[in-house]
Amino acid sequence: MQIADVFQAKKRLSKIIHDIPLEKSKRFSDVTGGTVYLKCEHRQLTGSFKVRGAYNKITKIKQSGATSDVIASSAGNHAQGVAFAARENGIKATIVMPRSTPIAKVSATEHYGAEVILFGDCYDDAHAKAVEIRNETGAIFIEPFDDVDVIAGQATVGLEIVNELEDADVIFVPAGGGGLLAGIAKTVKSLKPSVKIIGVQAEKADAICQSFALGKRVALDSIFTIADGIAVKKPGGLTFSIIKDYVDGMLTVTDEEIASTIIELIERTKQIVEPAGAAALAAVLSGKYDISGRNAVCLLSGGNIDVGFIHKIIEKGLIGRERELNLSVIMRDIPGGLSKISGIIGGENANIVSVRYDRTSAELHLNEVILHITCEVSGKEHANRLLNQLAHAGYKMK
Amino acid sequence: MQIADVFQAKKRLSKIIHDIPLEKSKRFSDVTGGTVYLKCEHRQLTGSFKVRGAYNKITKIKQSGATSDVIASSAGNHAQGVAFAARENGIKATIVMPRSTPIAKVSATEHYGAEVILFGDCYDDAHAKAVEIRNETGAIFIEPFDDVDVIAGQATVGLEIVNELEDADVIFVPAGGGGLLAGIAKTVKSLKPSVKIIGVQAEKADAICQSFALGKRVALDSIFTIADGIAVKKPGGLTFSIIKDYVDGMLTVTDEEIASTIIELIERTKQIVEPAGAAALAAVLSGKYDISGRNAVCLLSGGNIDVGFIHKIIEKGLIGRERELNLSVIMRDIPGGLSKISGIIGGENANIVSVRYDRTSAELHLNEVILHITCEVSGKEHANRLLNQLAHAGYKMK
Repeated sequence: MQIADVFQAKKRLSKIIHDIPLEKSKRFSDVTGGTVYLKCEHRQLTGSFKVRGAYNKITKIKQSGATSDVIASSAGNHAQGVAFAARENGIKATIVMPRSTPIAKVSATEHYGAEVILFGDCYDDAHAKAVEIRNETGAIFIEPFDDVDVIAGQATVGLEIVNELEDADVIFVPAGGGGLLAGIAKTVKSLKPSVKIIGVQAEKADAICQSFALGKRVALDSIFTIADGIAVKKPGGLTFSIIKDYVDGMLTVTDEEIASTIIELIERTKQIVEPAGAAALAAVLSGKYDISGRNAVCLLSGGNIDVGFIHKIIEKGLIGRERELNLSVIMRDIPGGLSKISGIIGGENANIVSVRYDRTSAELHLNEVILHITCEVSGKEHANRLLNQLAHAGYKMK
Repeated sequence: MQIADVFQAKKRLSKIIHDIPLEKSKRFSDVTGGTVYLKCEHRQLTGSFKVRGAYNKITKIKQSGATSDVIASSAGNHAQGVAFAARENGIKATIVMPRSTPIAKVSATEHYGAEVILFGDCYDDAHAKAVEIRNETGAIFIEPFDDVDVIAGQATVGLEIVNELEDADVIFVPAGGGGLLAGIAKTVKSLKPSVKIIGVQAEKADAICQSFALGKRVALDSIFTIADGIAVKKPGGLTFSIIKDYVDGMLTVTDEEIASTIIELIERTKQIVEPAGAAALAAVLSGKYDISGRNAVCLLSGGNIDVGFIHKIIEKGLIGRERELNLSVIMRDIPGGLSKISGIIGGENANIVSVRYDRTSAELHLNEVILHITCEVSGKEHANRLLNQLAHAGYKMK
């Protein structure tokens, strides 16, 4: 990919893409000692940056005079990007999605006019099916990341950042297959070599991190993360060759750090991102990269979170931030037992969220019961105060 | 309140308040046939418009040369507004909050430097305690809505809307005590009398609606809504006297409509508001006021939602939108029973969220069990298809 490709992509995109100014966050600046800017691609058309690459690719196909249909496989944002871009260009799109795809994402893709085929149990199955359909129909396959026009489309994010924030010092970019990271890295380094580019992956889906450390592409056997948008087993050949040369460093974040960052974004900025979209900010908030005194841009890459899944993430995030405490208390199985314990908990101003009785555990005497209690606390100190009160009252805890 | 008061308030606020441009929503415009603009006060300093009134009031006190402390009672956004405004003016603030206040709101208020006293079981208890402290200490009580300087502060929202959107036709404003509604109504009607002002309340907390219909203030015995920010039993005397003269109409929305609107905002705009903050948009999306062909502004008044509460709202909203289906199926209590039912549900591509066995219901034969199943569907049509399949397979449903 050449820089000229990125400028051409920017020109193609300029008519349709939302131009969202960087948001400076006072709160996140205060806690990190740097100046944090958010690049809000979760509010982009179709809810993620993916529309840039797909639109650049499909518009270029159309401009070349081709009239073929397009096909793609995706469980997520690429699907919506391709569907939207095809519709805008008057081209028919077929998207193969794994059967496990959340219903909201299927509906959104259909809403943009694509034909959705649900197939298989995972992305690889859907991908194989899409290739099969391509071979039968002659439709053009739109790669999710390993394609020069797709990369050039995503790279326009980097162009916008350097144009808007002249004194940016470091840009944090979430990475799965590496299209966005590669595009931004090459663009920014070409225009402003002093700006550091840091890629961020989920801890248990860190194929680019491992590849970066070894200097050659690594494929993972298995991946596991809530950040489905960046859960990719192997980086692209093209994307990795760019990343190797232009990226300054790679970091990982845990699912707990991602979940906690999602809650921070809700509470502090009233905005919601999908897990992959929180990874870059999570790297900064968790202190894995010191930005003190520097201008840091964190890319919030997408916002297409399944609403039915939000509460699981919130729960994970609250536990991670020690705002939720899980207790198992052994007590005598007599009337008034719960009243006494809940009195102590209420007296410490902790809020009980759930109570479960367990009378069947092997370790219990016949007259004992285990109470599994979840309660909301304000933090670690509050939790410890509560635990001390219970211990003081003679309760055994597991 | 005179318009000059609003201009003075705007001047006081101009240095500190976030100036957030109206957001035009393509999606909400498409579904309503009008043009929908969102006034995003949920992204305001402290997470709601309340900081405007509090800051105007406290800054005016300070400018008058007074050095007294201030005191307020609130379970919500007024607390954070007063705490922030007092700190900015170098004045000590004490806020009495009911003991039931979510921990996150207590922490946020303390974060702005206020002393928080938790007292009583409801707002009225906290209010009585605050009055008691005022009488003892001589601190100045900051009213949440029924105060001319507070109303003038909230009114600056109206000033901004008419300045920014010259051809606004109608403005929807959530209302509890009525400070925001009164301020906006008088301001907008004074500057542009042709703009309609519609107040929106929760169905079961509609004191202003009832008062508006009768032409005199009504107090409700009890109120019940998820929209705690507008759950007020009786409108203010001052606010109602303005509302009566300047507001064009009052509407109510149900909790289900509010919850469904919160989900729409998450899915479509990637932004999160508190229930009261969704009420104005809910009035438009539910079709209770026809805006076709008109420029409508919906005020998203606040975003301070308790994250621990979000999943309850999402669940309510999903059921309201028929995206979640609750089934009770009677089946024979034999091995393989669940496998067969879940096979049918999975075959229809509905996603099971929870299963509960009930063997103790009085209506059951000894060899029967009721399965309570919750599953995610794409809408009413999908739900009916699934129900038909189950009936076809011979299952009795309740």
